[in-house]
Amino acid sequence: MREIGIGVIGTGFMGKAHAIAYSASASVFGTGLRPVLQIVCDLSPERASQRATDLGFSRYTDKWQDVVSDPAVDLISICTPNDTHAEIAIAALKAGKHVWCEKPMSTSLADSHAMLAAAQESNGKTIIGYNYTKNPVVTYARRLIEDGKIGRVSGFFCRYDVENEADESRPWSWRMSRNSSGTGANGDVLSHVISIGHFLTGSHITNVVGDINIVHEKRTNPDDGSEMLVDNDDMVSALVHFENGVKGHIGASRVTWGRKCGLRWEIHGTRGTISFDQERLNEIKLFTAEDDDASNGFRTILTGPYHPPYSAFLPNAGHSLGYMDVKICELHDLLNGIETGADVWPDFTAGLKIEQVMDAVDRSAQTGAWVKVDS
Amino acid sequence: MREIGIGVIGTGFMGKAHAIAYSASASVFGTGLRPVLQIVCDLSPERASQRATDLGFSRYTDKWQDVVSDPAVDLISICTPNDTHAEIAIAALKAGKHVWCEKPMSTSLADSHAMLAAAQESNGKTIIGYNYTKNPVVTYARRLIEDGKIGRVSGFFCRYDVENEADESRPWSWRMSRNSSGTGANGDVLSHVISIGHFLTGSHITNVVGDINIVHEKRTNPDDGSEMLVDNDDMVSALVHFENGVKGHIGASRVTWGRKCGLRWEIHGTRGTISFDQERLNEIKLFTAEDDDASNGFRTILTGPYHPPYSAFLPNAGHSLGYMDVKICELHDLLNGIETGADVWPDFTAGLKIEQVMDAVDRSAQTGAWVKVDS
Amino acid sequence: MREIGIGVIGTGFMGKAHAIAYSASASVFGTGLRPVLQIVCDLSPERASQRATDLGFSRYTDKWQDVVSDPAVDLISICTPNDTHAEIAIAALKAGKHVWCEKPMSTSLADSHAMLAAAQESNGKTIIGYNYTKNPVVTYARRLIEDGKIGRVSGFFCRYDVENEADESRPWSWRMSRNSSGTGANGDVLSHVISIGHFLTGSHITNVVGDINIVHEKRTNPDDGSEMLVDNDDMVSALVHFENGVKGHIGASRVTWGRKCGLRWEIHGTRGTISFDQERLNEIKLFTAEDDDASNGFRTILTGPYHPPYSAFLPNAGHSLGYMDVKICELHDLLNGIETGADVWPDFTAGLKIEQVMDAVDRSAQTGAWVKVDS
Amino acid sequence: MREIGIGVIGTGFMGKAHAIAYSASASVFGTGLRPVLQIVCDLSPERASQRATDLGFSRYTDKWQDVVSDPAVDLISICTPNDTHAEIAIAALKAGKHVWCEKPMSTSLADSHAMLAAAQESNGKTIIGYNYTKNPVVTYARRLIEDGKIGRVSGFFCRYDVENEADESRPWSWRMSRNSSGTGANGDVLSHVISIGHFLTGSHITNVVGDINIVHEKRTNPDDGSEMLVDNDDMVSALVHFENGVKGHIGASRVTWGRKCGLRWEIHGTRGTISFDQERLNEIKLFTAEDDDASNGFRTILTGPYHPPYSAFLPNAGHSLGYMDVKICELHDLLNGIETGADVWPDFTAGLKIEQVMDAVDRSAQTGAWVKVDS
Repeated sequence: MREIGIGVIGTGFMGKAHAIAYSASASVFGTGLRPVLQIVCDLSPERASQRATDLGFSRYTDKWQDVVSDPAVDLISICTPNDTHAEIAIAALKAGKHVWCEKPMSTSLADSHAMLAAAQESNGKTIIGYNYTKNPVVTYARRLIEDGKIGRVSGFFCRYDVENEADESRPWSWRMSRNSSGTGANGDVLSHVISIGHFLTGSHITNVVGDINIVHEKRTNPDDGSEMLVDNDDMVSALVHFENGVKGHIGASRVTWGRKCGLRWEIHGTRGTISFDQERLNEIKLFTAEDDDASNGFRTILTGPYHPPYSAFLPNAGHSLGYMDVKICELHDLLNGIETGADVWPDFTAGLKIEQVMDAVDRSAQTGAWVKVDS
Repeated sequence: MREIGIGVIGTGFMGKAHAIAYSASASVFGTGLRPVLQIVCDLSPERASQRATDLGFSRYTDKWQDVVSDPAVDLISICTPNDTHAEIAIAALKAGKHVWCEKPMSTSLADSHAMLAAAQESNGKTIIGYNYTKNPVVTYARRLIEDGKIGRVSGFFCRYDVENEADESRPWSWRMSRNSSGTGANGDVLSHVISIGHFLTGSHITNVVGDINIVHEKRTNPDDGSEMLVDNDDMVSALVHFENGVKGHIGASRVTWGRKCGLRWEIHGTRGTISFDQERLNEIKLFTAEDDDASNGFRTILTGPYHPPYSAFLPNAGHSLGYMDVKICELHDLLNGIETGADVWPDFTAGLKIEQVMDAVDRSAQTGAWVKVDS
Repeated sequence: MREIGIGVIGTGFMGKAHAIAYSASASVFGTGLRPVLQIVCDLSPERASQRATDLGFSRYTDKWQDVVSDPAVDLISICTPNDTHAEIAIAALKAGKHVWCEKPMSTSLADSHAMLAAAQESNGKTIIGYNYTKNPVVTYARRLIEDGKIGRVSGFFCRYDVENEADESRPWSWRMSRNSSGTGANGDVLSHVISIGHFLTGSHITNVVGDINIVHEKRTNPDDGSEMLVDNDDMVSALVHFENGVKGHIGASRVTWGRKCGLRWEIHGTRGTISFDQERLNEIKLFTAEDDDASNGFRTILTGPYHPPYSAFLPNAGHSLGYMDVKICELHDLLNGIETGADVWPDFTAGLKIEQVMDAVDRSAQTGAWVKVDS
Repeated sequence: MREIGIGVIGTGFMGKAHAIAYSASASVFGTGLRPVLQIVCDLSPERASQRATDLGFSRYTDKWQDVVSDPAVDLISICTPNDTHAEIAIAALKAGKHVWCEKPMSTSLADSHAMLAAAQESNGKTIIGYNYTKNPVVTYARRLIEDGKIGRVSGFFCRYDVENEADESRPWSWRMSRNSSGTGANGDVLSHVISIGHFLTGSHITNVVGDINIVHEKRTNPDDGSEMLVDNDDMVSALVHFENGVKGHIGASRVTWGRKCGLRWEIHGTRGTISFDQERLNEIKLFTAEDDDASNGFRTILTGPYHPPYSAFLPNAGHSLGYMDVKICELHDLLNGIETGADVWPDFTAGLKIEQVMDAVDRSAQTGAWVKVDS
């Protein structure tokens, strides 16, 4: 196994998740590139130092430029606030690094375009962290669809509801401001929905009509107790058309009580139906027209060794992967692309397409008209 | 118990269902009006005669006018094809009868308006057969919402998917033609979705943007094997706004493999969430913000005697009501209205509101613009 | 349709359920014998009179002997307390009537033997009300097993847990006394479990080792507030062997919080597995070894028209039967037996076998030894 | 963080799982002892060398004695065949090492007693790998029970069914022989069931009556195609009594189609019920008597940060842990015990109690009599 030097920028939950994925990858797969944790960056040098020790990095810094310029680093994880993704990613690509960038890609289409341009001018591999598409059983769903198991796909329906801001007593934050955060549930949550739609259909959304809802219009400023206005979307919904003729609807909410990770999708085809619920991430439900009526029904398929790369983790079906395991699958796809030159999905090209849909939904919600997604 | 004379027009599945409900009602409830099966009507006198015997009617006819003019009849069930509802209902109301009309109300807004006018000029009670709102556990959901158990309602999301026409080898039928049937999944299936939305929120949809999909554009003429075009909706979707500020999306399909009676809804409030699946009609799932985080989760509530009028059927929770029992609940609401003068829901006023939403969705799907629902 | 005269003895929930089944049967099936409600009996003449009116009987009585001797009565429902079943059933059979007797068969093996002897000396058809075996989807499971769909059956595992007496503040009742009631959960609840086991396997239990648990040993006398001892089983469990080699375990409880009608079984075969939960009575789950590993999983099969006699009730799958509908299926089996001479299951022969297993479990629980079931 | 030197003996799936757990532990928890992978052992030096590279060990050996005598090693993982556990564990404890031994403890009660004696004479901490008790949501269930949330525990019911040997065409193996393997499903699978029972109740099983079933009595010898007899249990069941008065039944099977990791338990108390299914390992279902009847039901509780140590892995509920994460929790308990001196469960004392129950069930299955568990 050839080694690959790793730098991680940002040490919040995602920085930690990336570091754990790097640590486990070689042990899990036993083949491919072997990550070596070189340097970790946090704005606080104390925290950077602590994280370097905890997570097993050789050194640390409080300047992301040190990571980008580090000659021992081949691959950089960008786990910083969304509005810093573009600058770091572009610098990293220019420095000849590969980039694993957390979602969403950036906070403006212009930034995302610039990121894509930088990727196209470099030899670096890129990936955006739309982790829910990397689950082996979701990958298997994609394969069933490609193999025609459910016929021609006709409908895609997906919501992602979370509880994060459901409590109206939660204080106002920068996430609730268009100025500081852009959209709300759209950028935070709906982006995952779009990535799933693009992945499963092997197509992309071209036209949308969107709608938003601000459920809690006023929140309390945690600093001074004053009343603040929320001016971005608590909920967002859209009707969508895909390039290949699929139609459907998508939605997201950050204010839904009881949905902890409520990403649920259903895909309809002319010969079958598949559905999935992220809160039970080790199973999909499949119905096909093939069986006799009396004994037919949705099958609950549990992830197992016949759903690559599950068998790298566990020898028997039903033993269950977790969130972190799926993150390791995501890294595995990137490392494989770096090693073999294979395409990686969703790279910055695919990431931009997702951003464009988010943008189109938001624009449509302002005007009420169907909007064509830029391309 | 005072007797009430019954006439049933139409002897298909719905005619039979109404007759069984009439037969069982007094036994189940032991109070209120006691239905007496007077006369049944079918276009075929042979079939009418057979059904009179099977279902226990005193007499039969092949002319619906005989039912309308029968002095022993107080209440008439209209279980005939949709395009005959208006004429029969108006005549019945003019003759001083009460009317239990199957859904949808009619095949045109003009007809539905005329039906409402006739109802307003009469003393007759009316109800449209949106049976899924009569399930005791759905009624209980409504009560929870009214009582504020989930706070202010913010979102309503509902699909009704069925498999009826999923098989592309199913022949062409009149249901697949705009000329003969009007809309497709919209009128057949989405109408139920709208009735649920109106019922649960206690409000109604005022604005929509709709979209349709014809999944199987060509079918075979069963008569001569020729190829026929399908020109109404196999699938229909819409974003919706309610008068009281609720927003959401609705959808329906007649071509979804595996969904036998796939009416599923979820309603979001500022203090909780409720969800329901018609294929498991004896349970709702409730999450409220009240409990402590560690032990909180969606509760699966099984229908029981504390969900009126369940206890008229069964003494213990968990013993399960069926489709026919819910039809008996529907009748019970109508009989109660007739006996006590109480309002009945959904009467022709409420039925027209549902028709208007269906119409608005269809118009919007043609133009792509948001449409205001007539009122 | 030929008429058959009906007498019902007992007007509690079960008497009402039988009456409703009789009323609906002809309407639902449209073939076979047509029940005519002749006479109903209750110890209170006022209540008998009221019930005759509510339920539609021609006349009433407060003496069960009047029902037995009524020449217009062909079939008698016995819905009285368990300790009266034997006397009434034997008299009815001697009078040439058919008998629909609620479960359990009686309160002693001697009584059940006498009932069987009376049945064998008569031409009457008999059935014991083990209704859970009459659900079309359970009948379908039996057919799958007979057809070898899950191979040779190897294991049967079933519990029936209910909440009836879970609350320790519930007062003492005669059901909690060996003297007045015999066993507790065994007779009330486990009897259903045994009926299911016999039905699905087409065999019967021959050897058991049982155990009981009295969870709430003391209850309050509702009359005087004194403390009373509970001396029969709140819970009962047994390991069982069937004549055909199947092994497994069974159990029941009347003190399980949250289980409203918690009858759950699973049956293992050498080529598949089937499971069922009575609280979701319109579905079974089937796994067979036939499909490829990657796409295999338990199928949730919804009851539909391909599961006789579902189509007599509803034309489309997924519309759901309820408890009362299953009771109508039970009656249908009996009427069919009366009309055609076909065997009816579970008749008094099959009922006695169930009683014998209950008795063996109870005896084993006293001694701790494996017990051979009488035969 | 203080370092702790690690040696792993055995490099099958479990050896790999332990190594991954050691690698991830410090990154996940950021506190406590930091494992340093010193040496790995496999009987094949080539494989040992390869695994050392893949898994990140400093050195390797093909003699387990090298691990035991390595002065840099503080803690030894025993992931070898069951019949080698005793010799290695005793040597390791005598050498002053801590021991993480995979389940089952050994292949004879005598060996397990000797292991316990060695542990008692040493200062080493020990743990047996009954991983299913380490799931944060199962730990939470234990806490609910300790806190009295379901009242006094009255019943424990658990099965663990797997599909491993369900296919009758699977060849004979040493696992199917009493001589080479001891019991079958009992040792392989039921041992987990017993560990769960002891963990949840905080008590232990004192009396059992057991039964076994050999479903496929003949298998084909993979070497020469000859027919071989299977003489240990494909299925095993038992009625059980716990020291604290709880009663119930347990069971296991290695031949159940469709159950991939079918460990399901339900625990009954005088104020509530909890149930769990390992195939959905991120949720438990809880019913308590506290809520009002109308809105009460089993709550599906998703694992979250309020269920320690979940928050070390993920910040938000519903993001799901996997099998490997639970293994890391198991290690965390052991490391905590080593660091702080706290008791570790299940240590060799608790492990022996589990072995004794397995032995009692097997003995009872031979004689048919209730057997008192040794203690």
